[in-house]
Amino acid sequence: MTIIEKARKGIVTNEMKKVAAVEGVTPEFIRNEIAGGRIIIPKNKLRKNVEAGGIGNKLRTKVNANIGTSKDKNSLKLEMKKLRVSLEAGADAVMDLSTGGDIRAIRKAILAECPKPLGTVPIYEMFVTASAKCGGRLDLDAEYLFEVIEQQAEDGVDFMTVHCGLTQTALERIRKTKRLTGIVSRGGAFVAAWMTRTGRENPLYENFDRLLKICKKYEVAISLGDGLRPGCLADASDRPMVQEMIILGELAQKSLEEGVQTIIEGPGHMPLDEIASNVRLQKSVCNGAPYYVLGPLVTDVAPGYDHITSAIGGAIAAWAGADFLCYVTPSEHLGLPEPEDVRNGVIAARIAAHAADIVKLSDRSWDANMSKARKALDWDAQEKLGIDPSKFDLVKKTLKSKKGKKDKTCSMCGEFCAMEISDKLTE
Amino acid sequence: MTIIEKARKGIVTNEMKKVAAVEGVTPEFIRNEIAGGRIIIPKNKLRKNVEAGGIGNKLRTKVNANIGTSKDKNSLKLEMKKLRVSLEAGADAVMDLSTGGDIRAIRKAILAECPKPLGTVPIYEMFVTASAKCGGRLDLDAEYLFEVIEQQAEDGVDFMTVHCGLTQTALERIRKTKRLTGIVSRGGAFVAAWMTRTGRENPLYENFDRLLKICKKYEVAISLGDGLRPGCLADASDRPMVQEMIILGELAQKSLEEGVQTIIEGPGHMPLDEIASNVRLQKSVCNGAPYYVLGPLVTDVAPGYDHITSAIGGAIAAWAGADFLCYVTPSEHLGLPEPEDVRNGVIAARIAAHAADIVKLSDRSWDANMSKARKALDWDAQEKLGIDPSKFDLVKKTLKSKKGKKDKTCSMCGEFCAMEISDKLTE
Repeated sequence: MTIIEKARKGIVTNEMKKVAAVEGVTPEFIRNEIAGGRIIIPKNKLRKNVEAGGIGNKLRTKVNANIGTSKDKNSLKLEMKKLRVSLEAGADAVMDLSTGGDIRAIRKAILAECPKPLGTVPIYEMFVTASAKCGGRLDLDAEYLFEVIEQQAEDGVDFMTVHCGLTQTALERIRKTKRLTGIVSRGGAFVAAWMTRTGRENPLYENFDRLLKICKKYEVAISLGDGLRPGCLADASDRPMVQEMIILGELAQKSLEEGVQTIIEGPGHMPLDEIASNVRLQKSVCNGAPYYVLGPLVTDVAPGYDHITSAIGGAIAAWAGADFLCYVTPSEHLGLPEPEDVRNGVIAARIAAHAADIVKLSDRSWDANMSKARKALDWDAQEKLGIDPSKFDLVKKTLKSKKGKKDKTCSMCGEFCAMEISDKLTE
Repeated sequence: MTIIEKARKGIVTNEMKKVAAVEGVTPEFIRNEIAGGRIIIPKNKLRKNVEAGGIGNKLRTKVNANIGTSKDKNSLKLEMKKLRVSLEAGADAVMDLSTGGDIRAIRKAILAECPKPLGTVPIYEMFVTASAKCGGRLDLDAEYLFEVIEQQAEDGVDFMTVHCGLTQTALERIRKTKRLTGIVSRGGAFVAAWMTRTGRENPLYENFDRLLKICKKYEVAISLGDGLRPGCLADASDRPMVQEMIILGELAQKSLEEGVQTIIEGPGHMPLDEIASNVRLQKSVCNGAPYYVLGPLVTDVAPGYDHITSAIGGAIAAWAGADFLCYVTPSEHLGLPEPEDVRNGVIAARIAAHAADIVKLSDRSWDANMSKARKALDWDAQEKLGIDPSKFDLVKKTLKSKKGKKDKTCSMCGEFCAMEISDKLTE
């Protein structure tokens, strides 16, 4: 039985209890939401060393970090470093998007060291291998793709992005729409190119049952990829995007019926004022399935700062109900991230998630504790409470070099500290 | 005659024409909004080298950068560097908040080199000098404060923050409220401490006419400081904050009647869901006067990343109608900013401002041009359009090291570029 099937029968599993305890809700609530497809606990049956973490309705907003090699940059050592940086910075999940080097070996090494749910995009491995074999001609070999999916499931992957909603119906919308940046999802573009060339239906849609069977066998969660997500503000909320979301909603329903945990992927690039309605639309057409957004980036003009453009969009999305934020690093649109980009990406996404959770979960305790420590000029407590404690290194060094009474002085205002003056006021 | 008096008489000045041309609106619109106090063009009569820039209703959201010395760090050279970094990064205005070294000499040096409106907080100079004279006991000497204000006006300061709304009525609200972080405005805390000790009314409130007279003489714009702004989420939108805003609205009305340009300062720390209503409240009780917000920071827990916490809040505030964003640097809550913090602060605030302007001004042209360049893999055009062109240095270096056909390849996806695959799709 999968976790959904257990939940439906009223069984509360250990994973449900653990998630309930961490989130401060009842196990019964978790069970009910899993049965309804509104919460998932991604955890491959074969994985031993992964913590159970919940994603979805009324839970803390979670953050994913993408790592992975490319053809030009395929050092396992670098990826392991990025993994450690992601985890240190507080990522709740990691996706290995490797397209260079020995992809399976890299995945296995990451799986062995990652205590958080690990996701992949199996079509990447498929087309990298196909490309190496066929010398450039990229065929979508359904048989081989399912082999890859099954092998990844066997390796212990906890969730997989699959672009099942990119059907001929969705592609027709693309042809009838003037898009500024076309298709920006790599998996999406690949599938669409093959579908256009052959005139055939997307095999991931046609063989969705086969996909579900594999996922069920290994308890792999499906992340329904949005191959047609907008790649710029001009393409946001257009008909192809909405068409694909409708199909994803139908697939999510089927998936739930079969007992396979499912989340829905979302944009991408989107102006501020379209984000909340996008989230509400997703919740409606996908029956409340967890929503996993990439950003959204609220402007296209800031390469080098897309962790910020996406933190703005991510905060608004999570506030409106998005459950899972895929981080965006400063190097998005410029190149593959270095470890420092990974750290900045995870922290920015966590800030967005937490800013939303303050409102969504009505919980201001973390902020109140930090503010009390700040008011008390207690730098040790602030360091412990800071989202990135390492940022206090310099302050503490500066304070150490001072002596006695001055130790508590705020490094910013010096002797004209508002906190100190204000303290005297209420004495 | 001040610019407001001219606007009221139907006179369209050169400054109004310049601002209209830059903003793409009619000079008559600018004239009308200045007459109504909904737009200001801060520019001291005695300043020769300052560009006219407008702040307010239906104009592009502007960004201010705070620089200035402290007692421990008072190098003129460092401040001039921060000034240049602010301007390079695209700040629309600069405030000199110096509290260390020869404050007047620093101000004059900055004024001589700054082509954007320059603001100050005169009470800082007053209490630094008073503190040096009296050995710690901080008296609010009204006579001396007005001397400082007049001298700063003579020096050419374009706008000044004055905490006129912190009255005994407002202080009474503080006494009746449990605040977690009390008063976090330095000027506000200083004034409040003096008022509490002496039991007297705030001289900046009592002598508001005298202040207006000086501002009128030199055409200095007033920035009505919010001495009681919330310093943490727990204190956001409380009664003291709203009480002060009401008084600021009354003062702004008086100021407009006297022909003195005025803006209102706002928070501070504030959860996501209170920001839009805060902006709407300000617009209502202050008769549409331009709103100048410091952040708002949407969480208290991220020292080291407060340019991001404030970019989230600033984007939402500007979208709701805030006109002027004071930058917050990564080092806020940790120490005084270094030049690199200044750059990051300005860019983050500009991202927030622009993300809002896309919606507020219905203008997606910059983003569309960038997206076209991205789609065309035209790195030169992207560099020109990027909010920080220097971020493209590494990409261009990498591309240069490649040859021929590969030159156009996206550095992120390599041979599996969605843009390229997608191009073939529509061919």
